[in-house]
Amino acid sequence: MRIRVIVPITSFSEDYLEDRRKRLSKEALPMTELEFVSVKKGPITIESFYEEELAAIDLLENVKKAEEDGVDAVIIWCSGDPAVHAARELVKIPVVGPGEASFILAALLAHKFTVISPLERDIVRYENMAKILGIESKLASVRPLGITVLGLRSNREKAVERIILLSEKAIKEDGAHAIVLGCLGMFGMAKEVQEKIGIPVIDPGIAALKIAELLVQTGLSFSKLTYPYPPKKES
Amino acid sequence: MRIRVIVPITSFSEDYLEDRRKRLSKEALPMTELEFVSVKKGPITIESFYEEELAAIDLLENVKKAEEDGVDAVIIWCSGDPAVHAARELVKIPVVGPGEASFILAALLAHKFTVISPLERDIVRYENMAKILGIESKLASVRPLGITVLGLRSNREKAVERIILLSEKAIKEDGAHAIVLGCLGMFGMAKEVQEKIGIPVIDPGIAALKIAELLVQTGLSFSKLTYPYPPKKES
Amino acid sequence: MRIRVIVPITSFSEDYLEDRRKRLSKEALPMTELEFVSVKKGPITIESFYEEELAAIDLLENVKKAEEDGVDAVIIWCSGDPAVHAARELVKIPVVGPGEASFILAALLAHKFTVISPLERDIVRYENMAKILGIESKLASVRPLGITVLGLRSNREKAVERIILLSEKAIKEDGAHAIVLGCLGMFGMAKEVQEKIGIPVIDPGIAALKIAELLVQTGLSFSKLTYPYPPKKES
Amino acid sequence: MRIRVIVPITSFSEDYLEDRRKRLSKEALPMTELEFVSVKKGPITIESFYEEELAAIDLLENVKKAEEDGVDAVIIWCSGDPAVHAARELVKIPVVGPGEASFILAALLAHKFTVISPLERDIVRYENMAKILGIESKLASVRPLGITVLGLRSNREKAVERIILLSEKAIKEDGAHAIVLGCLGMFGMAKEVQEKIGIPVIDPGIAALKIAELLVQTGLSFSKLTYPYPPKKES
Amino acid sequence: MRIRVIVPITSFSEDYLEDRRKRLSKEALPMTELEFVSVKKGPITIESFYEEELAAIDLLENVKKAEEDGVDAVIIWCSGDPAVHAARELVKIPVVGPGEASFILAALLAHKFTVISPLERDIVRYENMAKILGIESKLASVRPLGITVLGLRSNREKAVERIILLSEKAIKEDGAHAIVLGCLGMFGMAKEVQEKIGIPVIDPGIAALKIAELLVQTGLSFSKLTYPYPPKKES
Amino acid sequence: MRIRVIVPITSFSEDYLEDRRKRLSKEALPMTELEFVSVKKGPITIESFYEEELAAIDLLENVKKAEEDGVDAVIIWCSGDPAVHAARELVKIPVVGPGEASFILAALLAHKFTVISPLERDIVRYENMAKILGIESKLASVRPLGITVLGLRSNREKAVERIILLSEKAIKEDGAHAIVLGCLGMFGMAKEVQEKIGIPVIDPGIAALKIAELLVQTGLSFSKLTYPYPPKKES
Repeated sequence: MRIRVIVPITSFSEDYLEDRRKRLSKEALPMTELEFVSVKKGPITIESFYEEELAAIDLLENVKKAEEDGVDAVIIWCSGDPAVHAARELVKIPVVGPGEASFILAALLAHKFTVISPLERDIVRYENMAKILGIESKLASVRPLGITVLGLRSNREKAVERIILLSEKAIKEDGAHAIVLGCLGMFGMAKEVQEKIGIPVIDPGIAALKIAELLVQTGLSFSKLTYPYPPKKES
Repeated sequence: MRIRVIVPITSFSEDYLEDRRKRLSKEALPMTELEFVSVKKGPITIESFYEEELAAIDLLENVKKAEEDGVDAVIIWCSGDPAVHAARELVKIPVVGPGEASFILAALLAHKFTVISPLERDIVRYENMAKILGIESKLASVRPLGITVLGLRSNREKAVERIILLSEKAIKEDGAHAIVLGCLGMFGMAKEVQEKIGIPVIDPGIAALKIAELLVQTGLSFSKLTYPYPPKKES
Repeated sequence: MRIRVIVPITSFSEDYLEDRRKRLSKEALPMTELEFVSVKKGPITIESFYEEELAAIDLLENVKKAEEDGVDAVIIWCSGDPAVHAARELVKIPVVGPGEASFILAALLAHKFTVISPLERDIVRYENMAKILGIESKLASVRPLGITVLGLRSNREKAVERIILLSEKAIKEDGAHAIVLGCLGMFGMAKEVQEKIGIPVIDPGIAALKIAELLVQTGLSFSKLTYPYPPKKES
Repeated sequence: MRIRVIVPITSFSEDYLEDRRKRLSKEALPMTELEFVSVKKGPITIESFYEEELAAIDLLENVKKAEEDGVDAVIIWCSGDPAVHAARELVKIPVVGPGEASFILAALLAHKFTVISPLERDIVRYENMAKILGIESKLASVRPLGITVLGLRSNREKAVERIILLSEKAIKEDGAHAIVLGCLGMFGMAKEVQEKIGIPVIDPGIAALKIAELLVQTGLSFSKLTYPYPPKKES
Repeated sequence: MRIRVIVPITSFSEDYLEDRRKRLSKEALPMTELEFVSVKKGPITIESFYEEELAAIDLLENVKKAEEDGVDAVIIWCSGDPAVHAARELVKIPVVGPGEASFILAALLAHKFTVISPLERDIVRYENMAKILGIESKLASVRPLGITVLGLRSNREKAVERIILLSEKAIKEDGAHAIVLGCLGMFGMAKEVQEKIGIPVIDPGIAALKIAELLVQTGLSFSKLTYPYPPKKES
Repeated sequence: MRIRVIVPITSFSEDYLEDRRKRLSKEALPMTELEFVSVKKGPITIESFYEEELAAIDLLENVKKAEEDGVDAVIIWCSGDPAVHAARELVKIPVVGPGEASFILAALLAHKFTVISPLERDIVRYENMAKILGIESKLASVRPLGITVLGLRSNREKAVERIILLSEKAIKEDGAHAIVLGCLGMFGMAKEVQEKIGIPVIDPGIAALKIAELLVQTGLSFSKLTYPYPPKKES
């Protein structure tokens, strides 16, 4: 199966894209063919509702093109799931958001979970995401690292250390029984954290990949009653 | 005070814009100066999440420009409140969404309320809006007219008739005690419907105007902790 | 328009009433004519459910009289909104409670808000008010000052200082993005606090006035399905 | 133990009071001494929030007097539980509301329950009561008989018949697994209905009595943190 | 009336059973005849979902036998209410779980309550119990003692001391207005704690007894629509 | 990877077990080795809470044995997820319940979903399951077929027909946007139904398999804070 990852930001060099592809491919099924593309127009990183909007148009074009190219599923490479509702309207293939994919797995695996986010402002986004998915009673807390997306890339070690620290606080003070890494800038850090803290730590990139593979295998996709095609206009 | 209404769709002619401005001005305070502008690039109408994204970029530019022009508050002329969260990040002045403005007034005035929407697909949007505002227990139902936005414009009489019919059903079958008109295509129809059905009927255009005026008068705006400015990127 | 403020307690001298009228008038629209009346029989202040009951009968008579006198809207000058549901049954004009008016504005302007109340016991009242309005997921916390209503009057400076202190705690510890002043004894303090803490601070007196003006202007009132007239008795 | 039932309406003759006392005594424990008193000033019946307020003052005096007289618990003989929060502030002995008592028993005994109320307007009251008790997810529906309180007294047979009819509808259409009779005017009808429909039917008078007896026996009463004494005023 | 207490664990000696019977009898009505029986096969104590399952089969046989023996109600002597839903399917007589009985009384008596549990792991069980009863908004917190069930028995004094300590914390930090003792190992400790902390403290054993007596007296039992008999199998 | 399916009922002949294994294997990954075992002691089918208890002991022994045998994940072949919480306490490997697995996928794919259950009594079980998972706002309804588990096996055609009929009703009357088949007796029917009704239809057997495979691949399992090992007893 072909799964295309669409990166909605412009700060991924070709090399970086290829690096991500290789790393994620290690988590993929043998029959999965992974492609990474990035938007040409869009924000450097997405850390605000505004930047989600900046990313949307090129992202949506990419989603449509993916289906035309015969791709089986699409992943939006951002935990805020930008434009994911709009994208699902445009196509029949699954469009997976890493945020939602992580949240439902965490809701399954644990009584309550905490999201580790880059910044304080992400609390609004993730609490709203939980409300829309209906699982707010499973969300123990959102704990911000105080590290920007670019900061996560440039200082991986410090980030992992701080994620471990906040996860331990979340367990102790918020009653968290699982951790969701709330940014693709934390991709690849889950296993290390999980080994340290001993509870499930969900990597948004892997969660999205695995849910995408699951959907393609089962022939399931997002409901066309929830995400119908945009209507034709009467003339 | 100056309030600028930004129309996020391209199907308003200059005349139509002016007509809307005049009609809404009748509802405005004497000290309110109303301006209507429309996006140059965007969808014909907004009836999907996708079209919200199409509207966003030009809309957001307009919001920024409004503040630069010294406008006191902005209204997004669409009940789906497209890009309203992003817009609030960009400016300090209030950016009012007619959907949210209508919902909180209805929640105040009645035990439960029903939203009359153009299409069945709007149920998802409005139930999610209620969840995010936290008032889902006050939302009796969303009742779709089965009439598109353009259809509302071209056949006003039929629309009013059908709104009355569905409102009566909502009272009887869903326990609605107030009605929210869930599309700016129904602007100006509330009073007629209210006279017929005898319970509060909230016009989204007027609700947005009055909330905007209220905010300007009181010096209140949307919280900058909920909608902080988009972050500067580290270099 | 004529708006009558009914003070449900007996500790307002004529001078104090006139002082409040003048101060609130500064916030009113030019076309608003404000009247302040106080109950003749009732409690000194309202700090318990019991004192709400003591206030009710004279208050309700005043509400009826207000409508008979041709007043356009009534405000009950107490954030606990005493007898407000009963009052709405008696008349067609809007009867605005400062508590509810503040809560819905805060729910609109911020992801979450905190109520600063006089006493610890007020937590019950305000959490129940949020439940009935349906917005409990927006209520970050209720933070009591530990100052009685009379104490608020006699030591304004200390009150403002403590409100600022608790608001900052609410932001930091409870995730509050806006503040509601939960007592009319704090009337006139919002702007000062807002300047200090930088997020929306809602004054219950001004919120009630502005919502009352909004309702009169739009011809909206509380639903007669939610608040029908008390039934005639069969004989 | 002495339990005093306070009737908050004025339409109970001395004979009727005595008749109610005798009937309720059949349900009481051998050690329970039942007293029925009625307010002297108050409404004929309570069918509105307004009439609750009319009943409150005399009712509250009676509650205080009951404690002074050495009574062990008080029951307010009205399913709307008028002034019950205020009353609990005034005394240490339990003040039981038949509405709340019925609701918690129904929440225990069944997945969901329906309240049969006299009038359509009661829906607001009972849905709000469920919200405050926190059990709205257990409330299947409120079904109004369309019979006033006086009508319940004057035509018992018709009332029972209609309660059975609505209960069967509630089972079939609303998923009710238990029934709460939502008015003391239906006192004594539960057993008859229960025999007919085969699911638990809760009589508010008996529920209140049994909860009152339970509390007295166990030395439990309402929390003084939830219902503290009204504060003394500073001078 | 005959009430049979079924102890679902095997660590009660005959003497200990008799001791419990005597102690609980002091709380019973004069007309109540109390019987204590213990399962023959089952866990030493119940501190996990697994041990609930170990207890279930013998427990359920005992419940059936109780009804055959003409017993009027059954109490499962464990606050986790093991197999209580299954048990109610098998019989018509009330099967009372001390956990549920305590929760609904606490929900009635206080704005919010805290459960004091033996171990940290009990948080999951009690938060889920509150969700199913629908009263999660009334549950302030679950506070674990860090003492096993056997530890509660062997060191009563230390347990009481620690319950008082945690209750005071729950009042101060979690907003608790009542306390539920969340283990039958704390049976008989409530009064002592209540005297110390001054808010209602609910003993699960007494709560279960009193609710059982209440149900027998009123002829109420659990709904057979919620707990229908297990179906006969088609052959 | 090795995944063992444990059938908690005794009515599967060896042939039937093998047939199920073959059918489910068609849905499995190439690297998945599927095993089907059935309890020796247990109910014929599970249609009540009581029968869940009958199934538990042998089921739990099988779960422990599976881990000892080096199996990577276990599936309980029953949509009611019997003893699944207890089972997770006993082992480290994932124990997947088809009910929970289906619910979270449906919550992801659709605004709201309906569960098609065999019998009316299943409504309680599935509404409680949704409450515990926290997704009750996503559950549009539970629609019972009125067909027993054995009936599903003996008359497949009628069952499919009726599932289609109820699914269409659920879409039209309850707002369902996806369907969950709420019994393993409907295993293998999803694709047929999905083709007919055009929205996602989730097969509980396939959902459980795919979630189990996903967990094994990612090294995730259920949180040991939510499901800790049963405690050793002090002696």
